[in-house]
Amino acid sequence: MVGSQIAAVLVAVLAYFIGCSQVPSFVGCRVYSVQDFKTWVPYIPHLFEPRGNEPFAAAAADSKRARFLEAFKDVRTELIGAFAAQGVPEDAQTWYARTIDYNVPGGKLNRGISVIDSVEIMKGRPLSKGEFSRPPCWDGPSSLYVSLQAFFLVMDDVMDKSITRRGQPCYYRVPGVGTISVNDAVLLESAIYQLLKAHFREDAYYVDLMELFHETTFQTSTGQLMDLITAPEDSVDLSKLSLEKFRLIALYKTAHYSFYLPVALAMLMCEIPQVYQSKSTSKPVHPYALARSILLPIGEYFQVQDDFLDFAADPAVLGKIGTDIVDNKCSWCINTALDAASPEQRAVLDANYGRRDAGMEDRVKAVFEEVGLREKYRAYEDKVHAEILSLIEAVPEEEGVSLKRQVFINFLDKIYKRQK
Amino acid sequence: MVGSQIAAVLVAVLAYFIGCSQVPSFVGCRVYSVQDFKTWVPYIPHLFEPRGNEPFAAAAADSKRARFLEAFKDVRTELIGAFAAQGVPEDAQTWYARTIDYNVPGGKLNRGISVIDSVEIMKGRPLSKGEFSRPPCWDGPSSLYVSLQAFFLVMDDVMDKSITRRGQPCYYRVPGVGTISVNDAVLLESAIYQLLKAHFREDAYYVDLMELFHETTFQTSTGQLMDLITAPEDSVDLSKLSLEKFRLIALYKTAHYSFYLPVALAMLMCEIPQVYQSKSTSKPVHPYALARSILLPIGEYFQVQDDFLDFAADPAVLGKIGTDIVDNKCSWCINTALDAASPEQRAVLDANYGRRDAGMEDRVKAVFEEVGLREKYRAYEDKVHAEILSLIEAVPEEEGVSLKRQVFINFLDKIYKRQK
Repeated sequence: MVGSQIAAVLVAVLAYFIGCSQVPSFVGCRVYSVQDFKTWVPYIPHLFEPRGNEPFAAAAADSKRARFLEAFKDVRTELIGAFAAQGVPEDAQTWYARTIDYNVPGGKLNRGISVIDSVEIMKGRPLSKGEFSRPPCWDGPSSLYVSLQAFFLVMDDVMDKSITRRGQPCYYRVPGVGTISVNDAVLLESAIYQLLKAHFREDAYYVDLMELFHETTFQTSTGQLMDLITAPEDSVDLSKLSLEKFRLIALYKTAHYSFYLPVALAMLMCEIPQVYQSKSTSKPVHPYALARSILLPIGEYFQVQDDFLDFAADPAVLGKIGTDIVDNKCSWCINTALDAASPEQRAVLDANYGRRDAGMEDRVKAVFEEVGLREKYRAYEDKVHAEILSLIEAVPEEEGVSLKRQVFINFLDKIYKRQK
Repeated sequence: MVGSQIAAVLVAVLAYFIGCSQVPSFVGCRVYSVQDFKTWVPYIPHLFEPRGNEPFAAAAADSKRARFLEAFKDVRTELIGAFAAQGVPEDAQTWYARTIDYNVPGGKLNRGISVIDSVEIMKGRPLSKGEFSRPPCWDGPSSLYVSLQAFFLVMDDVMDKSITRRGQPCYYRVPGVGTISVNDAVLLESAIYQLLKAHFREDAYYVDLMELFHETTFQTSTGQLMDLITAPEDSVDLSKLSLEKFRLIALYKTAHYSFYLPVALAMLMCEIPQVYQSKSTSKPVHPYALARSILLPIGEYFQVQDDFLDFAADPAVLGKIGTDIVDNKCSWCINTALDAASPEQRAVLDANYGRRDAGMEDRVKAVFEEVGLREKYRAYEDKVHAEILSLIEAVPEEEGVSLKRQVFINFLDKIYKRQK
């Protein structure tokens, strides 16, 4: 990107923060900080179109997804442009474009969209149509987010030797890709830091954003390692499993990046400080630690659901056939069953878990039913839902742009009693 | 690491910059910047041991390597401690420790050590024995460097399906590792940013350090992609090769991270500014761009040597048997031969390059000899050496801690006319 484009993008990002409905049409002016921009922008109102506050917060997820994909086109152009600008040959440019197209914008994009949902809740108003219309506006953080997810998923599929992802062959299985996918994943990871540098370098929280992505990458890789070595594909040893290990894997592999990261991103972009004094309780609030203390339990609950549905859901509803039992996964189901099993049932689990055999899988499922896994799940869900609700209710709410209980309720409502 | 340890480490890093020979024995005091530290430290001279300026700059590389390995023990302890502090089970801790031990401190460590060499040259004095004695002192930047290299090498070996590295099986070939190595590589990459955060967060150039590693990772992955798709293992098409592609791959895959990165790290740690006025020429100097404009050609020259030695060196001297011809590599040799080949010689190359067959390899080698590759290499080496020397001579030298010609001469001397 040339200097003027970067300036345009920067202005667009700043415009987003102050709630302008349209991006100023000038480029090339240097803006030093959000604060500077806020100071002088009221004096140039003619630069902006009138606000149009169409309520998109309540819009269907499909519509948000479509908007994300539309806005993502510009991010894609920017990334491919930056790659090409290195002077690389055309075949490499084509390859890189395919890497992005194949891996980044797929899926439901729920997590990427949750960044925007959280921003809207903390700002206390739906973002306007105009705010959606420029790439760095709302898909800036979401794009970062889905780039990170693409990086993880490409890697995970190689490690897990998965077959399909989002209804298409896993990327590494595309003819000619193979282990090159590992390098492509690193390029996707690099895209995060390029976007951060291009759009957030002047912001006070630029370092926080980079550290947040570094930390989340480390945590997720830690979770992936625990998962891979606890239940390797080629050797079954149920004595290595435990509910504690399940919990750690769920927290590290899933909860940090799927639940804490989108909210923390939204908080940084709303300029929520690291600590503030609550006006209602007169006590200091550490909003990031507070958010983490609620979102990690939600993430763990989400993983328990995932594991339970893998066993119990109707495949027609779930959209896939569960494979955790034959894959020797350290899931909530097997660990809960192990805790409740009689010596005879334990022997059945030892002899049949983690084998690619339909009859053996059925024998494991029978033990799951015998120990009452469905009832245990229902009791777990009621209990954890109540616990998380009480955590949320303890969040002190302040006026203005600040941490809001609804951010967490939004996540909890989306997953409570989900069937798929 | 607990707070007090971080403080101790931070003080140690700062002590390094001001040339103290020993780390202060207190911990827990908050130091806000190098400048603050420089202001108050003269008032507490009793905190430091007397300086001992034993000249280590001239010490043998083996001795530096031994010192690095000794100092690396503390970095290792720190990284494993940070990993364990997440509450991960013991098997994951053991795995992570093995990942570090197997991949990070191996090899000649020349590039990691070149960071320190460059710091010594720019400071204009050898670092003292005391300066070597604490981990963040001199192996801080070197550790970052070798962590990045370990990340690349683990990934590359998976992608290249290599067999051995540094005289032992490639990491992914260790029983039970396999594709988990890809995740371990991400953990090694995370280690860079953990060390940066732990030891450099208070420094003004913290952002520059992070961006430098991000940029270098992107460049190196770009080079790896070009390499992998230009000359895939399973299909030979010499029309896809060119000296221009060779040059791009050499610059991106090797020169940025092996030559520019160590010097740029050393420059940041010597607090060389982004731009300054030369006292000798009265013109502005952009030292990082200047360093890059010299180090990238040195890196390209290094890669030409690597490729030539792969073909021409005595395996007993080189320490390995060259495989570029059978591996279908986009090397300097094949591209130079293609440029010089007659239609008949070209046909021989087309029919025999990139095949795992000793007879075919010999026929390619015969064409290399026929086109006079040895003479072309000697002419190239003389020409490029003279060109790089003239670039170096044009570097304006300033008094005090600043960019010095010797930094570049050091690199050039190490590789000029090398036989292995």
